[in-house]
Amino acid sequence: MARSSARTEQRILDAAYGLFWRQGFVRVSMDQIAERAKVTKRTLYQRFRSKDDLIAAALAHSSELAMQRLEQFKLPANRDAMIDSIFGQIADWAATPRWSGAGFTRVAVELADLRGHPARAIARRHKAAVEAWFCARLATAKVSSPRERAREIVLLMEGAMMLMLIHGDHGYAEAAAHAAKRLVRKN
Amino acid sequence: MARSSARTEQRILDAAYGLFWRQGFVRVSMDQIAERAKVTKRTLYQRFRSKDDLIAAALAHSSELAMQRLEQFKLPANRDAMIDSIFGQIADWAATPRWSGAGFTRVAVELADLRGHPARAIARRHKAAVEAWFCARLATAKVSSPRERAREIVLLMEGAMMLMLIHGDHGYAEAAAHAAKRLVRKN
Repeated sequence: MARSSARTEQRILDAAYGLFWRQGFVRVSMDQIAERAKVTKRTLYQRFRSKDDLIAAALAHSSELAMQRLEQFKLPANRDAMIDSIFGQIADWAATPRWSGAGFTRVAVELADLRGHPARAIARRHKAAVEAWFCARLATAKVSSPRERAREIVLLMEGAMMLMLIHGDHGYAEAAAHAAKRLVRKN
Repeated sequence: MARSSARTEQRILDAAYGLFWRQGFVRVSMDQIAERAKVTKRTLYQRFRSKDDLIAAALAHSSELAMQRLEQFKLPANRDAMIDSIFGQIADWAATPRWSGAGFTRVAVELADLRGHPARAIARRHKAAVEAWFCARLATAKVSSPRERAREIVLLMEGAMMLMLIHGDHGYAEAAAHAAKRLVRKN
């Protein structure tokens, strides 16, 4: 019973995150989520009191998975190759069909006027964790001022993702990688 | 009569943009816009067939005003001072109460799954016009490779706006300005 219950919750979280990410947090209804997760609305509301709670839980779950993937991520030791690999993967991701931008960025924009929303705090923590991850990687690669360089890389990453979403042009990821390499080299 | 009609349209566009920018394009209703613009729903629908048309018209109007302001904008002739001025103004803007990010970025995120929406095309054109404006300014300031440097500046600007929205920390605008100055100096 406990295992089946955990599986149901998992299914709800996956369905919710998939729909939120595709269509936006505001436009998705609890009905759609119940339908996609193949649970009744009663079951859905037993586990999550509101759509806001579900948004927060789905994002927390997604952040955990993303950080686990990052920790296992093998990066080239060479600095330039490391940067090319990161921005190359972002460009590949942005080229997937119906790509809709980064989920944590999306929630911050959609809930821009709701600073106290629990999902905003999760987006904040996630972005800070990614920045800290870069800082650790750059320090390992013996880059000097790794905190400053990590911050520049996340600035360029956010910019590249947003401008690829706007223009549908992967040239922005290449330009960002080129800038990041120069900033890391010449500091 | 014609003048009063133009004023009514103006009032609707201002009301719509203000509400869209604060609360997001999806959550604002035509009722709210009619109420804020002090027009009847009948008048509103006489001028704009749908909320989608109104989103596009409000963004086109806002883009025109923003580009006029940019054209009149006096920038310091010195490169570093120019970059500090740009990022300083973005940081000041982000510090205003209830700041909700850049409107054209916001529409691209909220309508991420609707690539054919007329508002997406307006956002694209607006961002391209801002990038071209930077390119012209950098060329005037005798910066070499102004196209490449302009692209890097808009990447850092988008990143800074997004990370300030997420973290509420103006350090991101300062870090972006610092990176932009180094990229412009050392190319």
